[in-house]
Amino acid sequence: MAGTDHKADDGWAGPQPVFVLVRPQMGENIGAAARGMWNFGLEHMRLVAPRDGWPNPAAVAMASGAARVLDGVQVRETTQSAVADLTHVYATTARPREMTKTVMTPEAAMADARLRVAAGERVGVLFGAERSGLENADIVLANTIITVPVNPAFASLNLGQCVLLTAYEWQRVADQTPGAELVTKARPAEREEVARLCDNLEEQLEQAGFFYPEHKRASMQTNLRNLFSRLPLTDADVRTLYGVFRRLWEKREPRD
Amino acid sequence: MAGTDHKADDGWAGPQPVFVLVRPQMGENIGAAARGMWNFGLEHMRLVAPRDGWPNPAAVAMASGAARVLDGVQVRETTQSAVADLTHVYATTARPREMTKTVMTPEAAMADARLRVAAGERVGVLFGAERSGLENADIVLANTIITVPVNPAFASLNLGQCVLLTAYEWQRVADQTPGAELVTKARPAEREEVARLCDNLEEQLEQAGFFYPEHKRASMQTNLRNLFSRLPLTDADVRTLYGVFRRLWEKREPRD
Repeated sequence: MAGTDHKADDGWAGPQPVFVLVRPQMGENIGAAARGMWNFGLEHMRLVAPRDGWPNPAAVAMASGAARVLDGVQVRETTQSAVADLTHVYATTARPREMTKTVMTPEAAMADARLRVAAGERVGVLFGAERSGLENADIVLANTIITVPVNPAFASLNLGQCVLLTAYEWQRVADQTPGAELVTKARPAEREEVARLCDNLEEQLEQAGFFYPEHKRASMQTNLRNLFSRLPLTDADVRTLYGVFRRLWEKREPRD
Repeated sequence: MAGTDHKADDGWAGPQPVFVLVRPQMGENIGAAARGMWNFGLEHMRLVAPRDGWPNPAAVAMASGAARVLDGVQVRETTQSAVADLTHVYATTARPREMTKTVMTPEAAMADARLRVAAGERVGVLFGAERSGLENADIVLANTIITVPVNPAFASLNLGQCVLLTAYEWQRVADQTPGAELVTKARPAEREEVARLCDNLEEQLEQAGFFYPEHKRASMQTNLRNLFSRLPLTDADVRTLYGVFRRLWEKREPRD
């Protein structure tokens, strides 16, 4: 519902991290994870000991549109075998209490992953099961931990949400989309166009006796010019306003 | 599964944007939106003409843990009445084709919203229905558009995902969590501690006849010191390695 299709394919392909779902339970959640990955151009998924086996029809039904992620899924018996060929592994979990690890935000971790992937490393991210999350035996296999800074009063993120936010950050940290862009067939108005619009309006208002009483004329004119000066008008907006003012003005004297 | 509870409450309370769900259909999606909002500390939700009326038991069931968001929901008949008391409104949608609007990324939009809220503005974000999204009649009520830069090959984001990413950005753009932080009861080792560990190991290896042949001694020593120098060791790691090397060394001569 809030996507864009104006971008070229640049930045969406190329080497990318593997997302490893460890002992996932519901097929629906595997499918939702696939959607979240593919939303941001990630397509390499591995499953460690999925509860309901593989393939899983519920995952396929939920993943509609992101089927290519599930088509390429690799299934492993253990987390250790799922990360065996990787060179750097992140584990998504709450902050560890007993284990010495570097904890990163999703943002910092995905920026780090981009650097590593660009340098030829093979990178993976571990995601735990729906309820229990990752076990210490999984976490100890990781180089680094990713913890999403969530509301301390409600720290529960489900599997699909965690995958979505991590995939989003993978894309966002390298995204070239302008932060803010005026989308229009028109162009921003030049200051001269705005000034002439104000001149024209002022002349009409002058004839209409708008600037009254006389000692307020200067401040009324300043206020009007300031109003239009600070609006982000396009050239088309200026033409529209010319027409609006003219019609209002002409209405004072019946048309032929 | 990947939350943190180490933060103080600072930054989680205070004035915040209203999220307006326009003509939402499934109660489950309203509940999921509530969870995504409360995950990142947002609690003001409005509903425009929810299909199944309000309250909705399916929304409550899905929102478990984020019930306070649903408890405070305000229901309106029209989008116009839902934004009537607001001063700045964002609409989440794909890039508009016919309407002149500024399009922002979620990141830029939430940074902008933070500035406005801090200046006392009342800010809202519109989210469209599951399938159809926002209509032009809704979008025209907004000052600015938010478009998530998704994979052009799979631009489908559902309601819950769109709410989650926007709420995440509201928190992230003001978040004080360090990007990377070593979480440990130990402390990073001082260089002197690493150097003494290497001295000790070198002496043991010397006696064990490790540095052979003689003409390779210098490069072997350099390689060993470099190995330990570039590892991110803590003081506890250094003590562990002392013990490991000692035990291996002592094993050469049976213990008493």
